[in-house]
Amino acid sequence: MLEQSDDTTRPRSLSRLLFGKPLATVDLEHQTVNRLVGLAVFASDALSSTAYATEEILFILALAGTGSVILGLSLQLALAIAVLLIIVTISYRQTIYAYPNGGGAYIVARDNLGEVAAQIAGAALLTDYILTVAVSVSSGVAQIASAFPALLPFRVQMALLVIVVMTVVNLRGVKESGTIFAIPTYFFLGTMFLTLAVGVYRYFTGTLGVVTGIEVAETAVQPLTLFLILRAFSSGSAALTGIEAISNGITAFKEPRSHNAAVTLQWMSTILIVIFLGITFLAHQIQALPSESETVISQLGRLVFGDGTILYLAMVAGTALILLMAANTSYADFPRLAALHAGDGFLPRQLTYRGGRLVFSWGIVTLATLASLLVIVMKARTTALIPLYAIGVFLSFTISQTGMVVRLLKIGKLKPGEKVQGLETVMTYDPHWRLKSVISAIGAFCTGVVMLIFAITKFTSGAWFVILLIPVLVFAFFRVHHHYKEVAEALALQEKHYDIVTHPVQTVVLIDGVHAGTLQLVDFAKSLGHPWRAVHIGVNPERTRRARQVWDEKIGEGELVVIPSPYRQLNRPIRTYIKQMLKENPNAFVHVVVGHLAMDSAWKQMLHQNSVLIFNMALSGLERVVVTIVPFQIRREESQEGVVDRNRFTRQDLRRDGGD
Amino acid sequence: MLEQSDDTTRPRSLSRLLFGKPLATVDLEHQTVNRLVGLAVFASDALSSTAYATEEILFILALAGTGSVILGLSLQLALAIAVLLIIVTISYRQTIYAYPNGGGAYIVARDNLGEVAAQIAGAALLTDYILTVAVSVSSGVAQIASAFPALLPFRVQMALLVIVVMTVVNLRGVKESGTIFAIPTYFFLGTMFLTLAVGVYRYFTGTLGVVTGIEVAETAVQPLTLFLILRAFSSGSAALTGIEAISNGITAFKEPRSHNAAVTLQWMSTILIVIFLGITFLAHQIQALPSESETVISQLGRLVFGDGTILYLAMVAGTALILLMAANTSYADFPRLAALHAGDGFLPRQLTYRGGRLVFSWGIVTLATLASLLVIVMKARTTALIPLYAIGVFLSFTISQTGMVVRLLKIGKLKPGEKVQGLETVMTYDPHWRLKSVISAIGAFCTGVVMLIFAITKFTSGAWFVILLIPVLVFAFFRVHHHYKEVAEALALQEKHYDIVTHPVQTVVLIDGVHAGTLQLVDFAKSLGHPWRAVHIGVNPERTRRARQVWDEKIGEGELVVIPSPYRQLNRPIRTYIKQMLKENPNAFVHVVVGHLAMDSAWKQMLHQNSVLIFNMALSGLERVVVTIVPFQIRREESQEGVVDRNRFTRQDLRRDGGD
Repeated sequence: MLEQSDDTTRPRSLSRLLFGKPLATVDLEHQTVNRLVGLAVFASDALSSTAYATEEILFILALAGTGSVILGLSLQLALAIAVLLIIVTISYRQTIYAYPNGGGAYIVARDNLGEVAAQIAGAALLTDYILTVAVSVSSGVAQIASAFPALLPFRVQMALLVIVVMTVVNLRGVKESGTIFAIPTYFFLGTMFLTLAVGVYRYFTGTLGVVTGIEVAETAVQPLTLFLILRAFSSGSAALTGIEAISNGITAFKEPRSHNAAVTLQWMSTILIVIFLGITFLAHQIQALPSESETVISQLGRLVFGDGTILYLAMVAGTALILLMAANTSYADFPRLAALHAGDGFLPRQLTYRGGRLVFSWGIVTLATLASLLVIVMKARTTALIPLYAIGVFLSFTISQTGMVVRLLKIGKLKPGEKVQGLETVMTYDPHWRLKSVISAIGAFCTGVVMLIFAITKFTSGAWFVILLIPVLVFAFFRVHHHYKEVAEALALQEKHYDIVTHPVQTVVLIDGVHAGTLQLVDFAKSLGHPWRAVHIGVNPERTRRARQVWDEKIGEGELVVIPSPYRQLNRPIRTYIKQMLKENPNAFVHVVVGHLAMDSAWKQMLHQNSVLIFNMALSGLERVVVTIVPFQIRREESQEGVVDRNRFTRQDLRRDGGD
Repeated sequence: MLEQSDDTTRPRSLSRLLFGKPLATVDLEHQTVNRLVGLAVFASDALSSTAYATEEILFILALAGTGSVILGLSLQLALAIAVLLIIVTISYRQTIYAYPNGGGAYIVARDNLGEVAAQIAGAALLTDYILTVAVSVSSGVAQIASAFPALLPFRVQMALLVIVVMTVVNLRGVKESGTIFAIPTYFFLGTMFLTLAVGVYRYFTGTLGVVTGIEVAETAVQPLTLFLILRAFSSGSAALTGIEAISNGITAFKEPRSHNAAVTLQWMSTILIVIFLGITFLAHQIQALPSESETVISQLGRLVFGDGTILYLAMVAGTALILLMAANTSYADFPRLAALHAGDGFLPRQLTYRGGRLVFSWGIVTLATLASLLVIVMKARTTALIPLYAIGVFLSFTISQTGMVVRLLKIGKLKPGEKVQGLETVMTYDPHWRLKSVISAIGAFCTGVVMLIFAITKFTSGAWFVILLIPVLVFAFFRVHHHYKEVAEALALQEKHYDIVTHPVQTVVLIDGVHAGTLQLVDFAKSLGHPWRAVHIGVNPERTRRARQVWDEKIGEGELVVIPSPYRQLNRPIRTYIKQMLKENPNAFVHVVVGHLAMDSAWKQMLHQNSVLIFNMALSGLERVVVTIVPFQIRREESQEGVVDRNRFTRQDLRRDGGD
């Protein structure tokens, strides 16, 4: 009910301040971004992974020792990952052109491979978006703690604060958050390129030096095996995560969407490769060591610029910022993807509602909640989160590119110039279909292999959880879908025309005590013009006696039925009574009228029994029984809206005497 | 809504299993206990404090050093506390006879000192009951951890588990919990007396020995001052807490209540003094030292019986049990006292409702929740909780005994044989009023002094919080009271007789899509026989178009009004529309009819928008506007209760084809 908070006066101003003024639905298409902002919004995830990818490779290799030969492997692994990145980029470029309305793995899979593949890809991606937020925020906080060790004990609290701020920013809407996030992204790129340039210059002039005084992580505990090298490779390939963000978010780009998105993708991949290789190269030269207390990036910065210098601090700040902002990619994509699932009836419908600021508020809040839980459980440690991470991304890469292969094979069967309407897009003959399908196939194969490496080498350190989770999610998605189908069938109108049928109505007024609110209840019941009676549930004999007495004295009209309730329950006796009425009136509606004392604040409301909820719960399972709530205003304001009869409701005058 | 869970089939059996079958109101008076069970139920708090009172004295004295001279003061302090205990016991005995219907500080203060004093006493006691649960459970868990150090890291979890189990037991009702708790209380008394007997025997035969190898707590950090001695005295006087339990719970005793309660009180005080002095004496002889890792009781047990012996384990188990069960005193008294406050309109009314098992379910749940929070915040450390503790008890002691003095002075003014009806009781002339009032005055004075010592010496270590909390609570109580008075005034029926007045009714049917559920809505609206129209809120233009089309095709009757909602809100447009209707029909009820898809499980229900809540929120502030909920059953069961027209609702047949 996020979009409802605008109604009352106080929440409106707070909500305005935090989230901005509501936007009309027609404003939807204006909320698009150009390439430069698009790079900031969608590339921060991919670019930020350079902040930890090198380190994660070193963490694994160091298990076999910290000699130059062993850690030197990191450079070769980084090159292999760069090649993989190029393949995936070319392959995804094709997807962007084929699906100008957004070509995430979910859509491509749904279009070409069917519902099950689509749900698997979607489950994998949704899981990974949540992990992206947790990993990026945790790693960003770790960078800050590298520069200011005093903050180390507050990592979890800091991470949660970041998530809260990011949630508020995103509830304001994508364009404004794009502008906000452009600054840190370009700040990161500036400081990072400067670091690499100065570092390479000092390397060639022989003034770079080596890292000393690092408290190294677990090291030299096992031999260097192929398995270990593959583990290091898969850890490093976390650098690829986030590359799919642009293809999911094509619709957020200005026209021509596909072209702008594709160019942005190429920029992003190029920058990513340069930074990743540069960091890995320099890290090897300075003999950086993986450590729990200082990140490799911070070690590099200290050596290049000198400890405590402004440039060092700017570089650490830039890295921290890009990491903290990287989570924003997920804030852009998770709600969009969740809305797609929900639109197809595989997730709760509420996820498709756009809030006051045109964003999918429920999706944003869901993402923030789950990521926060993950940060708390994993205590904001990046290395603990990495094994959970990336497996889902590579699974979705594989599915998406396999879908493209299927699509291109179909296109290959068309005659030149022929067009076929697919589920999502129009397929036109393409003379290059063979080359393109081979590219996609290579991409699918490579990412599939990496996924398997990931699943096997990280299985015991956490990947098992994701491998278990994804099928569970897919099962849940199909259960939800089944439910919506069932409801749709139940609600279907089969016949050509329906006559509206009237039935007799029996009115039952539920009363507790007899007071000013009761009068209004009975007024309404009598105004309805159907046979009516008052019913009192006798929980407390003294109360019952008094209710009967006041009823007879002050009202003296209609029948007051008392249902005894020796076990002091409200719902069971009334349910039994109403069922009996249904039996006696097999063709009538039973109209239950309940009073509700409406207070002017939630706190005051909590001081009352609010039995309306109880009665609704008790009776909502009965067909032909409708419950009416008659509110009676107990409010502080002097100006009442629409009082039926001012002479009767003397309550305001009373208040003026006895009030504070 | 604890008492409502009995209605549906599944919760009923679970609830039955946990809480037993519901009891009728007429069973109320059978739920009383005899002296032996009463001792177990109401004395466990007081008796259990012997498990930590000596230790808390030693903790403070040790700050000045652990020499025999300094720690020898503990014995003299224990004697002083025993004298205080005798004074309070004699004084409370008088209260029990004067107030046979329950003479807690709240009632005595209300009767003799007025509302403010009563609310202060009540706030102090309620706070202390919560602390009793936290302290006793924490200390009990510490005893267990003394015997099994491996459990030390799980103290908080263990404490929470204990609270949950105790809550379930108490929701079953006081008599059964009395029987359950009698066993551990008597087991504790058995093992404790055996420990003392064997200890004293070994002391006289010179075979007792002294404690070695204890990791001692903070020691010799400040000089021995009078302030320190007073601090130790106030810590030790925690032994008195719980002594008031019997006077609060007199009504739970079998007739003759007052006599039975008074005898139980004397038993309790005698046992308490013997155990407290015995432990303190032996602790001094064995040179027991305060420690965070092993309790003094455990040190004593190890020395008397030998480490690891069955008797040692039995003694530790007995102590742990009595502590864990001591919390039960609060489970008996907190809900009763809260219900008294609530009955007088100073706490939410819900606290006066007796659940299915005749206990005050809301009070029990409130107590358990607050105590659990306290355990979590204070990490289940007894020594951190003690400074918060006991100040409230001594405040209530002082108020209660002052009340008795006032009462006895009033009685002194009566003529022999004269009777006066007080608020609570009949006051009759008593020839011994002078002696009695002197006893109460001494009691009030002594406990008042102890309270001041407590407040001053413990101020910085936590007592400030309670000193701040009690006035805040009292203020809140009076705010609640003010609110209830305001509502009562607003609801008062001043005139002699009221005629029921009928008004025109305008029916508005809110529809989203047009489906089988809509038919029932419209059937009902038409059946009412008032002018009606259908209203659709246009959030999504495509949905709106389809709704209009299906309406025209399938229903084609009545007017369908579309209210555009460019900001995708539901509540604001409908509120504006209804307000306009109210203006146009200044003397009519506006009757809003809303559909509700009723699912057969809460999970399924959550997959739907359930906009009923939203509409109720939006409209409950408008006078003359009533909201009717028409449920439409989407259920799995084949047997529907009361279907209006089987031919129309073909949904079941559909399900049989398409269902799983």
